[in-house]
Amino acid sequence: MLKYDSKYMFSPKIKEKAIKKEDLFDFKKNGFKDSLTFRKLIYDDTSKIKEIGNRIKSKFSTYVVVGIGGSDLGSRTIESAISTKNGLEVKFIGENTDPDEIADFFKGIDLKSTIFNIVSKSGETVEIIANFLYIKNIIYSSLGNKGVSENIVITTSSPGSTLHKLSQEYDINVIEGVADVGDRFSVLSVIGLLTAHVLGCDIDKFLEGARSIDDKTNSNSPNENDALMFAELNYLSFQNLGKNISVLMPYSQNLRNFGFWYRQLWAESLGKKLSNSGDIVHFGLTPVASVGSTDQHSQIQLYNEGPNDKIITFIEVDKFKNDLEIKALDSLVSYLNGKTFSDIIHTERLATSISLMENGISNGTLHIDEITEFSLGELFYFFELAVSYIGDFANINTFDQPGVEKGKEYMYSMLLKPGFEEQKKHLDEIINENI
Amino acid sequence: MLKYDSKYMFSPKIKEKAIKKEDLFDFKKNGFKDSLTFRKLIYDDTSKIKEIGNRIKSKFSTYVVVGIGGSDLGSRTIESAISTKNGLEVKFIGENTDPDEIADFFKGIDLKSTIFNIVSKSGETVEIIANFLYIKNIIYSSLGNKGVSENIVITTSSPGSTLHKLSQEYDINVIEGVADVGDRFSVLSVIGLLTAHVLGCDIDKFLEGARSIDDKTNSNSPNENDALMFAELNYLSFQNLGKNISVLMPYSQNLRNFGFWYRQLWAESLGKKLSNSGDIVHFGLTPVASVGSTDQHSQIQLYNEGPNDKIITFIEVDKFKNDLEIKALDSLVSYLNGKTFSDIIHTERLATSISLMENGISNGTLHIDEITEFSLGELFYFFELAVSYIGDFANINTFDQPGVEKGKEYMYSMLLKPGFEEQKKHLDEIINENI
Repeated sequence: MLKYDSKYMFSPKIKEKAIKKEDLFDFKKNGFKDSLTFRKLIYDDTSKIKEIGNRIKSKFSTYVVVGIGGSDLGSRTIESAISTKNGLEVKFIGENTDPDEIADFFKGIDLKSTIFNIVSKSGETVEIIANFLYIKNIIYSSLGNKGVSENIVITTSSPGSTLHKLSQEYDINVIEGVADVGDRFSVLSVIGLLTAHVLGCDIDKFLEGARSIDDKTNSNSPNENDALMFAELNYLSFQNLGKNISVLMPYSQNLRNFGFWYRQLWAESLGKKLSNSGDIVHFGLTPVASVGSTDQHSQIQLYNEGPNDKIITFIEVDKFKNDLEIKALDSLVSYLNGKTFSDIIHTERLATSISLMENGISNGTLHIDEITEFSLGELFYFFELAVSYIGDFANINTFDQPGVEKGKEYMYSMLLKPGFEEQKKHLDEIINENI
Repeated sequence: MLKYDSKYMFSPKIKEKAIKKEDLFDFKKNGFKDSLTFRKLIYDDTSKIKEIGNRIKSKFSTYVVVGIGGSDLGSRTIESAISTKNGLEVKFIGENTDPDEIADFFKGIDLKSTIFNIVSKSGETVEIIANFLYIKNIIYSSLGNKGVSENIVITTSSPGSTLHKLSQEYDINVIEGVADVGDRFSVLSVIGLLTAHVLGCDIDKFLEGARSIDDKTNSNSPNENDALMFAELNYLSFQNLGKNISVLMPYSQNLRNFGFWYRQLWAESLGKKLSNSGDIVHFGLTPVASVGSTDQHSQIQLYNEGPNDKIITFIEVDKFKNDLEIKALDSLVSYLNGKTFSDIIHTERLATSISLMENGISNGTLHIDEITEFSLGELFYFFELAVSYIGDFANINTFDQPGVEKGKEYMYSMLLKPGFEEQKKHLDEIINENI
């Protein structure tokens, strides 16, 4: 079971910039959990997802997720964390609009045995529409209309959207019943779970893991509710101590992508401006995705000696799938003889945690038993709940992202999309003025 | 040629937290560039590296770099940035001590045709020694002593080190002439360039690119010296404006790993504590490796609306190798018809840059012509020089990393390495006291 060890957040060695236990508070908002739309997902029936997944598995050998942001980060996390032997090969394209990446990608693809799932909840994401058009044309050239309609599927929740209309025009199936949650909260819906099923995962276990966290968060006290404790420590570190960086550092190569999922969830949910009695306040700790033990040789110098502006959270995998023993008969290295790589990685995490604490740098550790569908479900849901708590403390809307709209409009206007002529004029002025 | 566009660092729209042009200063330290040991590398003769590389290429089909931190980040950057057709397959292991990663790695390896380059400048890195021992035993089981001595090579600059002694014991070749520069400044030495040569790159072009930056930094004025300008803007943002985060965001999937190289260079070089007339001061902007356009769907909400605590630097690749055109005949998307993915990614960078500037968020852009050996040489050297300038302004030692020593000692003591008994006692007390 997931456990959050927060003792080095309060250690007496952390004298300055320390949260005190008496700073913690109970959370007493009635009906808060019920108000979270993403919570409903974890009590959903998954048979429909399995049915779609089984159809895909019976016909294809490669499954490509075409998504960006919340449309693919959850799937990427699952794919790199869990390896099974009874699933399809899963690949990803569309998280960028880099032509070199796209060109390289298609060199290694057998189109006939590949299905592309085009994922955009809004159905309007320009990167995904551009990728869709490109992929559709490639498939058409090689497999004709039949290929377009059989080797592509579209995941969107917006019936009137551009992507939905294009699906009708090209006779492409649309995956139904996409939950109406923000895409960064969608990993435990068909958006993440279809990938998981196609990979050969037991998708019910993800939801079981998430529900086990949900059960543990019935308490209003941070001492009995780890997600609440984690949320309060992050919030108080920012609000009271001015720490503006939140580092997540799993000691696991297979959880590297979890850091990228976390980074999106955290930044889009919590990076907000709000009006506070007339004043504009800018909220948000910047998430940093780090990896142990790798980053001991990259970031730990800074974390130990640089400014005390971070709250650091390790993820410890208590048991790895493999446990490779080191034979070291030479006397120079005999202290390593009989040790395993697990011994080394666990030791590194603990040594780093203690030395940070002794330098006065707050750090905590999330323990999971092993990397399984269950523990990934725990982790996803733990962080989704934690950002929801923090957003509530900060009095922001955790679920919108107004700060990306202007950039999008500017992009559309430069691409000469109809309806953005005003912005184009404004931009031309800026660019020509050379401000 | 690399160019740094800093106009949105000074824009009048950036009212608060703005650097003013009059804050900039000339850099007048005599002999500064001559004092940089990494500078000598770029005037070195590369024939020895090519000779070693050619021997490897003639005998093997896969080349594995076994390194962590500065021993592999440069090689990883080159491998993912430049694709050639006349080189070996290059793989990486050892950047972590995760047993699951190591076990998976060896499933796909044909040992006979593979050479492992064990890279540790100090020859003492425990992760690398552990990986070496494991790899050596795997090779021995399958190819015997002959395999151990032929399919492994060791890169170290320390003759008396553990790894060097082990090389003698197992009759393994040691690559000679490893320059005595810190590993995070070693990419333009045999450590990065041997990988590049084996990959099929023209390694002289890296040095040409670096030298072109070196030439441009003869001026003491930031207005004529881009690396100095970049360094001053970062330094002043931290020192005068309290911005403690430096984001690097290449709009290129193939430069994603450049962000990880930058992150290590930056954090280990600049994250330092120093004594300032008796007071302890903690210096260092936290580096964040971001990627465009991907992170527009992940981080840009925070950058636009969150705290104004960042200096953001984009990297723009002016010309991609491929330029894929989009056909979009349907009226819904006809504005995309004839556009290329390059158009989209360039537009996204510019739209993001302008919208940040209008929100008062300082940002600059490094332009490179295309991704080549030359431009990578420019980028590597530009950042190496920039951190050296910043370290000098801040009066820190840019080239050491004392802040990782205690963690290492704690790890050794927990692994029961002889000589660390005192630390073990101390640690046991901490762990048992449950501080």
